[in-house]
Amino acid sequence: MIIKILTIAPEEFTAFLKTPLIRRNVESGLLDMQIIDMRDYVKGSFRKIDDSPYGGGAGMILRCEPVVNALKANRSEKSHVLIMDPIGKKFDQKKAHELSNREELIIICGHFEGFDARIYDYADEIISIGDYILRGGELSAMVVCEATMRLVDGSMKKESVLQESFENGILEYPRYTRPNEFDGKKVPEVLLSGNEKNINEWRKTEAEKLTEKYRPDLFNRVKK
Amino acid sequence: MIIKILTIAPEEFTAFLKTPLIRRNVESGLLDMQIIDMRDYVKGSFRKIDDSPYGGGAGMILRCEPVVNALKANRSEKSHVLIMDPIGKKFDQKKAHELSNREELIIICGHFEGFDARIYDYADEIISIGDYILRGGELSAMVVCEATMRLVDGSMKKESVLQESFENGILEYPRYTRPNEFDGKKVPEVLLSGNEKNINEWRKTEAEKLTEKYRPDLFNRVKK
Repeated sequence: MIIKILTIAPEEFTAFLKTPLIRRNVESGLLDMQIIDMRDYVKGSFRKIDDSPYGGGAGMILRCEPVVNALKANRSEKSHVLIMDPIGKKFDQKKAHELSNREELIIICGHFEGFDARIYDYADEIISIGDYILRGGELSAMVVCEATMRLVDGSMKKESVLQESFENGILEYPRYTRPNEFDGKKVPEVLLSGNEKNINEWRKTEAEKLTEKYRPDLFNRVKK
Repeated sequence: MIIKILTIAPEEFTAFLKTPLIRRNVESGLLDMQIIDMRDYVKGSFRKIDDSPYGGGAGMILRCEPVVNALKANRSEKSHVLIMDPIGKKFDQKKAHELSNREELIIICGHFEGFDARIYDYADEIISIGDYILRGGELSAMVVCEATMRLVDGSMKKESVLQESFENGILEYPRYTRPNEFDGKKVPEVLLSGNEKNINEWRKTEAEKLTEKYRPDLFNRVKK
């Protein structure tokens, strides 16, 4: 899989590129990750990437030129182009699965007060990771890369992924590890019983209870 | 404001600490940001932070000891303790405002297949940034810090924040900057008119149109 990130802050990805998931998959050749500085696609010695909005108002708007030029220079026929923006469709585990089957993603990160609105025309999808405002699209792009890359075939153990929250429409069951008593809190007896059938039943019930308590929206969807 | 991040991967925060928002506010004294390695709170020479789950199953579970010991050593009476976990309450702009008024946040990042379930008892709130699975809580913690820190008094220009998406319950109006024609696409005439009243009306209408198109859920909530 190829992931190209278009950003004006490439230095913000340095630590992310070193995380085990990304580094390991780059080293194995499963992932080709390119951080592309949109400033390199602006003509003129000032490399002006932003400007004040027409009609007045606070803040600076990311100009068409750096974004669209960088995109045109880096996209191919197989590219799927995402813009990270709060107006977008909500990113979720289903979307991560869908993206994990793409050959090439290009992720455009906004910054400042936002994009020139004409830039939206160049995206295949506009995606939001949640209803909150960040400084730019950099953290959002990392979230999308990490959630998606985990699901690419060969990247993670299949059994780990299948047990996770959202994969079955509900939250994962509560898990415990040693010691069996900590700070006065004990591990449920059934988990120490060695009885696989009882353990599985308990986990199914507890996963449903957890979902009903914390995420009634998911619970009601599954129970319908 | 004090923000303490409890993590087993402190190196993943290096680039984040250098982003302008965090660095500027640390330098000005507005923010005291501490990245705390939970491995430092495990006894024994192996510093074993995870173990396999009771009752069997895939993956490794973050043990109680490193997390709870690190928390007890770093919390004070004014600490508000968050655990980043997909079971949590959905983080949004309203929650970011609420957190921005706290004196001290402690954010606990999970990792591997998740936490020992007894750890949840030690949090004031469990928070999720969205319905997707990441490797751990590190990116989620950065998202919460960035969204929250932007709203702390003195951190950003007030006028910039007030115009943003979600602040008025709807998305922000579309913005344009120079040139007024790019790749055959023109800036709407009204924005070049200099007529402030017309510009404001156009922006209000367009913000509503944008919200109705991309986020009918928000639109319907505001229109009720």
